[in-house]
Amino acid sequence: MKLATIVWLLILPGAIGWQVSDGGEAQVAYPEGYRTWVHVKSELLSPAHQNFAANGGFHHIYANPEAMTGYRSRSFPEGSVVVFDWLETKEDNGLFAEGARRRVDVMVKDSKRFAKTGGWGFQRFVKDSKTERAAAPSPEQCFACHEKLKKDGLILSSYRP
Amino acid sequence: MKLATIVWLLILPGAIGWQVSDGGEAQVAYPEGYRTWVHVKSELLSPAHQNFAANGGFHHIYANPEAMTGYRSRSFPEGSVVVFDWLETKEDNGLFAEGARRRVDVMVKDSKRFAKTGGWGFQRFVKDSKTERAAAPSPEQCFACHEKLKKDGLILSSYRP
Repeated sequence: MKLATIVWLLILPGAIGWQVSDGGEAQVAYPEGYRTWVHVKSELLSPAHQNFAANGGFHHIYANPEAMTGYRSRSFPEGSVVVFDWLETKEDNGLFAEGARRRVDVMVKDSKRFAKTGGWGFQRFVKDSKTERAAAPSPEQCFACHEKLKKDGLILSSYRP
Repeated sequence: MKLATIVWLLILPGAIGWQVSDGGEAQVAYPEGYRTWVHVKSELLSPAHQNFAANGGFHHIYANPEAMTGYRSRSFPEGSVVVFDWLETKEDNGLFAEGARRRVDVMVKDSKRFAKTGGWGFQRFVKDSKTERAAAPSPEQCFACHEKLKKDGLILSSYRP
């Protein structure tokens, strides 16, 4: 066996290690430090909305520097990460305050790793956990809906100046 | 006249120029670039609230790096700037979206310049304007209320992780 082949075989498992999960699928990392990223925009889905039980509360969107380049040009470069932060809401006579975290949805642009889903990886993390990944929706389900709704890319939001 | 005196007289107006307004009061600068600062927290004051007409809409708070040090330690260093961003809200069947900017309230920590109001300068900017300063509330009115409500400093909010 040639040395080059041995080196290649030694490197390969490590290189694949951070790219794929145990199931062989490319995996999206927890977006460490996203709370200090740029706040793109917000909305509130209140108890008066028909989808409150499933999706109610504050929705805050955050973007890393690469994704901010994308929000400005509408062409998102490799390495773009967008976080959709879901928080419970507490109402007091018409004043809505932020409550506990419901989940953290993440989109990561990597055209090679996530070629099957439009070049974007999708992952939902449960509540405040950095390791517990929601079983649903699947990346394919996320992609299908974003693909259907898209205007100029799979990122559906726009930056609010 | 000695040269040093002449130099001093030449420098003095310029040095005072950025510190005080025409009225002789210390002036708070527009917080250029605050939309890329850290998003501290949000709330929504909906039409169901009794103060909606005056203060309704989304309230987003942003902090510069010095102020983030303060949010973490509850001791705000000189140079801390905190922005309270007020946006109109648009409701559609329980979903609240962000609307036009109502105003931008700014607090700046400078113990010397703003000694009269607890070491903090207060200023409200009108809508999206970087130059139009609201006549009211006055810094003294802002200070009086913050002073009354304070727990461990004049910043009333806490960082939401």
